Amino acid sequence: MTRDDEVTDVLALLAAGDLAAFARLADDAAHAPELRARITLSRMASAGLAPLESLEAYAVAQGTDPEVFDDRIWQLREILADFDARTTPRDWWERLVRTYIGYGVAYELEYIVARDLDASSAAVAEPSLGDDGLGVYVVDVLAPVIQAEPQLGARLALWGRRVVGEALEVANRLLLASPALVRAAGVTPRGARVEVEDLAPLMGQLTSGHARRMARLGLTS
Amino acid sequence: MTRDDEVTDVLALLAAGDLAAFARLADDAAHAPELRARITLSRMASAGLAPLESLEAYAVAQGTDPEVFDDRIWQLREILADFDARTTPRDWWERLVRTYIGYGVAYELEYIVARDLDASSAAVAEPSLGDDGLGVYVVDVLAPVIQAEPQLGARLALWGRRVVGEALEVANRLLLASPALVRAAGVTPRGARVEVEDLAPLMGQLTSGHARRMARLGLTS
Repeated sequence: MTRDDEVTDVLALLAAGDLAAFARLADDAAHAPELRARITLSRMASAGLAPLESLEAYAVAQGTDPEVFDDRIWQLREILADFDARTTPRDWWERLVRTYIGYGVAYELEYIVARDLDASSAAVAEPSLGDDGLGVYVVDVLAPVIQAEPQLGARLALWGRRVVGEALEVANRLLLASPALVRAAGVTPRGARVEVEDLAPLMGQLTSGHARRMARLGLTS
Repeated sequence: MTRDDEVTDVLALLAAGDLAAFARLADDAAHAPELRARITLSRMASAGLAPLESLEAYAVAQGTDPEVFDDRIWQLREILADFDARTTPRDWWERLVRTYIGYGVAYELEYIVARDLDASSAAVAEPSLGDDGLGVYVVDVLAPVIQAEPQLGARLALWGRRVVGEALEVANRLLLASPALVRAAGVTPRGARVEVEDLAPLMGQLTSGHARRMARLGLTS
């Protein structure tokens, strides 16, 4: 059972995540080295934007003030945007790894906070949590290259560690900015305020998910 | 009546234009100062990408080698991307003016080269030529601001002259890169090769269209 402010913040996080993913994939598309990759990533970017409208409509129908909802999305989006600002890729491979990791951590965090939504909220949340094919695409493109070029693999493994550090830092900041999201994640703070230590088990869970995804690329995390 | 290579190049230009518009609008969205503008521009970007699939499918069904078509799109897209690289906006208003002008000139050029397509090609071209609402959106947002702030208007008028110069230069380069597009535009070169002078009437037409669009913003061109 989730409280109203939890539903609002979970849906705002999904909307902010959809907007951030759109911007990142569109930027990746603009840096793609050839046409097919550019088209594929542009299309993925567009598809990921589709759920936004229903998230907004539902939140407002549930009685959330549209301006409050917009403000919430904007605040959470600003925190998410920091991930991109702090992980500037040096080439196309680093860019793909960055998006793969950031997308993976964000997706897992969204999944965790949306887990206990009531049925009608969960139905609205579901399209934002759906797989847009980015993970499979990056693994298909990158895993063979990494297998063929161990030096590149070593560089990308190092890069991956830096990137996931930033991703977890952003996840931490999102949760510290919203007690409602922390409750939605099923975390009970030990004190009156949420502290970083309260979030440690959740961060452990995100780290395990990340390790599984890196293994799929043939990289150790 | 258009020849096969004209159809190929016209459709490739529309596809390149759709991809360039997606990238520009997505980048504009990422720079939007508030959520509503960000969402509106992200959605416009996505909508503009929709016709791409049918352009490709049609060109291939007409017997164009998919790789040749892709190469053509990529070459034309590179020329289009130069417009963005050479017009870095200093603020949100310059950004909106840049996109408005670039979109306007590109749309008009596309319209001119697509004018004499056969009926079935024209039907496929039509969605790329459709209005995605960008012009009306920019006028709605910007015209009142310009009216209220004459100093901003003066700066944006100057900026507009620089931007349209780059847009016309890019239009010139697109046409010099493709004799088929020149023929599709109804231009007959005086010599064996297309020269800049041959394109002067067409550039005059693009300039008039630009002046009309600037007037709609309340700016002299």
